[in-house]
Amino acid sequence: MTDHRPATRDHHIRDGQAIYDRSFAIIRAEADLARFSGDEEKVAVRIIHACGMVEIAADLAFSPGAVAAAKAALAAGAPVLCDAKMVANGVTRSRLPADNDVVCTLDDPSVPDLARRIGNTRTAAAMELWRERLPGSVVAIGNAPTALFRLLDLLDEGVAPPAAVIGMPVGFVGAAESKEALMADGRVPYLVIRGRKGGSAMTAAAVNAVASERE
Amino acid sequence: MTDHRPATRDHHIRDGQAIYDRSFAIIRAEADLARFSGDEEKVAVRIIHACGMVEIAADLAFSPGAVAAAKAALAAGAPVLCDAKMVANGVTRSRLPADNDVVCTLDDPSVPDLARRIGNTRTAAAMELWRERLPGSVVAIGNAPTALFRLLDLLDEGVAPPAAVIGMPVGFVGAAESKEALMADGRVPYLVIRGRKGGSAMTAAAVNAVASERE
Repeated sequence: MTDHRPATRDHHIRDGQAIYDRSFAIIRAEADLARFSGDEEKVAVRIIHACGMVEIAADLAFSPGAVAAAKAALAAGAPVLCDAKMVANGVTRSRLPADNDVVCTLDDPSVPDLARRIGNTRTAAAMELWRERLPGSVVAIGNAPTALFRLLDLLDEGVAPPAAVIGMPVGFVGAAESKEALMADGRVPYLVIRGRKGGSAMTAAAVNAVASERE
Repeated sequence: MTDHRPATRDHHIRDGQAIYDRSFAIIRAEADLARFSGDEEKVAVRIIHACGMVEIAADLAFSPGAVAAAKAALAAGAPVLCDAKMVANGVTRSRLPADNDVVCTLDDPSVPDLARRIGNTRTAAAMELWRERLPGSVVAIGNAPTALFRLLDLLDEGVAPPAAVIGMPVGFVGAAESKEALMADGRVPYLVIRGRKGGSAMTAAAVNAVASERE
């Protein structure tokens, strides 16, 4: 039962699923989602839900078949490789179809030394520890543009590509450029928020949308 | 040394602190921050950094002295009480001045039963476990409007107020209304993002800004 009275302190919806249902109904009423395929639309709705901005729909870019590729990989048990702990933390484990591993290597004790040695951020250095698991994985980058650039370097070095990249780093230095580089690269199916916007909540929302049909 | 060449895959900044420095310089050049006090400005800059949107500055609201109250509480060892694990996860522990506890009670085994019993969301139910620690604490709500409404109920029930509330739930159902209710209430110093926008990343950014002068 969706409740359409305005929320006040004394009267507001207190049922979690009812809040989701009403939120998604408002999003579908307000957002321009016509250009998306069915599975892209569900990702768009969940990203909008995570940020409170229906206008973010205009910034979303999917390569053809990317959502299907990510879904198939998760169904087959692929791990989700995250650049930030907040991304990993935002993935709802009960939505994952195969009890998939959700991996963030940022806190590995080898990372600070590695970052100094390769002259890159800790986030980029942490990805060195992804090499074995990268092929066929679902990569979720919600924080660091350097991680997205480093991913392309790893492919140059001969590492087989992930099944799909959810590339949504946020910010003012390199974020927009790293996402344009991913889109231009052509080697990996992608789900991207173009421009400066993005972040861990929207990235985790995209993972959660891909992981399950459930709304 | 700030680097002003545009970021490309072959040429982008790889030094974490340099990325922060350049980001904050871009934010201060682009955002309209004139109406903020010095300590509010630092919070605004860090929130903008977390979301990639300089225009969010217009939606920020601080009650007079709220940032100072939050800073003093943290310096005195107050815990940070978070409605969501992503908020707790986004707090940079090394910025906290007194090795403060960062608490999220959402996963406590008593919460699902409690939610059913009080007829509210799990997030609101989890706050029942805050009662002892709430007085003088710093509350950080980045996800659930029901948590912000529930906080006001707890004050009605006689629980002494927190030192400050960072109230930044996101979304389409109750988020804007819960933040307006907090601002109208008058019993608690607040840091708020008005309207639908907000979320765990911006909330954690506000905590991180209050926790340390370091940029």
